[in-house]
Amino acid sequence: MLLLDQTRLPHEIKIEPQKSVTQVWESIRQLKVRGAPAIGIAAAYGLLVDLDPAAFADRDAIVQEIANRAEYLETARPTAVNLAWALNRMRNRLHQSASNPASVRASLLQEARLIHAEDRQICQAIAEQGLHLIKPGMNILTHCNAGALAVSELGTALAPLYLARKKGISFHVYVDETRPLLQGSRLTAWELDQSGIDVTLICDNMAAYVMSQGKVDLIITGTDRVAANGDVANKIGTLGLAILARHFKLPLYIACPSSSIDLDMQTGEEIEIEQRDPDEVRGFAGVRAAPENINVLNPAFDVTPANLVTGILTEKGLLTPPYGPQLADLCK
Amino acid sequence: MLLLDQTRLPHEIKIEPQKSVTQVWESIRQLKVRGAPAIGIAAAYGLLVDLDPAAFADRDAIVQEIANRAEYLETARPTAVNLAWALNRMRNRLHQSASNPASVRASLLQEARLIHAEDRQICQAIAEQGLHLIKPGMNILTHCNAGALAVSELGTALAPLYLARKKGISFHVYVDETRPLLQGSRLTAWELDQSGIDVTLICDNMAAYVMSQGKVDLIITGTDRVAANGDVANKIGTLGLAILARHFKLPLYIACPSSSIDLDMQTGEEIEIEQRDPDEVRGFAGVRAAPENINVLNPAFDVTPANLVTGILTEKGLLTPPYGPQLADLCK
Repeated sequence: MLLLDQTRLPHEIKIEPQKSVTQVWESIRQLKVRGAPAIGIAAAYGLLVDLDPAAFADRDAIVQEIANRAEYLETARPTAVNLAWALNRMRNRLHQSASNPASVRASLLQEARLIHAEDRQICQAIAEQGLHLIKPGMNILTHCNAGALAVSELGTALAPLYLARKKGISFHVYVDETRPLLQGSRLTAWELDQSGIDVTLICDNMAAYVMSQGKVDLIITGTDRVAANGDVANKIGTLGLAILARHFKLPLYIACPSSSIDLDMQTGEEIEIEQRDPDEVRGFAGVRAAPENINVLNPAFDVTPANLVTGILTEKGLLTPPYGPQLADLCK
Repeated sequence: MLLLDQTRLPHEIKIEPQKSVTQVWESIRQLKVRGAPAIGIAAAYGLLVDLDPAAFADRDAIVQEIANRAEYLETARPTAVNLAWALNRMRNRLHQSASNPASVRASLLQEARLIHAEDRQICQAIAEQGLHLIKPGMNILTHCNAGALAVSELGTALAPLYLARKKGISFHVYVDETRPLLQGSRLTAWELDQSGIDVTLICDNMAAYVMSQGKVDLIITGTDRVAANGDVANKIGTLGLAILARHFKLPLYIACPSSSIDLDMQTGEEIEIEQRDPDEVRGFAGVRAAPENINVLNPAFDVTPANLVTGILTEKGLLTPPYGPQLADLCK
């Protein structure tokens, strides 16, 4: 299994072979692989890294090992539901799987490939469902990275943009840099620019200014988990954007593959928010800007209440409020 | 004239002797000295750097040189009105000044010292006028740096906090890091922490999260220019905070010495917003994070409309809406 180390972008394109399940856990934890769907896919394949069927006496032994690995990988990051979702699919397959270690492994590899292939189709479907939102000459604002680097191929939030571009529609994208780990400047600005889309990078605190100048027509982001009522957990800063969007009467869309919907969470209040290393806020890339040991809060996500979300863009269509019944239908 | 190079804080305390008016211009431009009142004071003293009265034939020659310097220094940064305000005071004194080069210089040095001394008194008065806002146990959010490093001694926005601390009131301050130049993490977190105040540093995009958790009771910032109607130009990100404050029904106060009021600007729309070097946004403390040459917007300030401001805290009292008549009175 090979992973592109996203922490090194855009300066270096480094492909890291994953040699152990511990390494996969660390890669997810350190955001070398990131983006809700990509985490799920990495975890699915990650269950099988360095797993030699010949080393197991019988079916039960390999099933136990894979179950242990699934439990372990699930702890790498708490907020994106896709991680648990993909591992649960692998677990279901595990319990249905065949009679000897080699066929157990083969069966699970097939399931991981299926998750990966479905993800590609879902991104394409999100692109098609959201294409009508992207109008010629529009200014679009996005936050963090929900593009090709977060998922397969087209991404989620950026999928309609890539499809629009392919169809010859011209538009312009403001990209929030997305502190502390700068996924916006490092990843989104990079991948949009590479694909020839007109990009302007701003600091997170400039979004209100840009909106106040009438320079934003639409905001679109991804999500890490959508609760049953439509509350949206996404990268820290999304809630602020949603409040600004409401103030300036701008539409805010959340691109959400159905694997990111978690009907077990009644509302966003139940979603666990990952708190990360304070040093991420004290500096960047090893350069410290703040006093040593200064007290820091570093929530990786926030929750945007459903009433601030104009629409949830899924692979099966664009949902508008009230979200509850439609989200439930979608997961049937 | 000595300046503390604020761009090197908190890692290094470097005092730079200012040896030419060009160097002073660069120091203001590069934010080695920053904060609206401090820029005014630095410019006032800066007029006299390396100015030897013996080098001038007569009064008219030195007056012309100082007038030229004033015109030049005024171009260092456009948004903070205090720069023009202080230089105008120096110009007025210049025209009233005495008969020979040495006495012209002495007279202007006296005026610069007066501006500096008045500033100290104004900060003390702002502290006293704002003290009642700071209640025990409060959580206060501030943005950028309007503290001791921006002004003399107590600062403006931080002045009531320092006075409250001195009076034994305990409270906690969230400090926005304030991208791109990180005045919050480098300066505000540092100076509050040094003075024993309980501080938590956050990224700018975390303010909405912190407010949504009920962890903010009051927001206070400085300003670079207040228009006649009460619209407030301040560090980029202030407008966003003001919109969030309104959403969460939190009070937002702007600390404003009367030297920051500009009655010539009817509304904030007339205030020129400084656009700075794109590389400030492309990187973080000298580390590049974004693709080279990516398009960037880098406004140093934004304008918060008066209707989002709960109160303007001046050395003569706390103004509440409507601001127009009171601001006019204050400048009489």
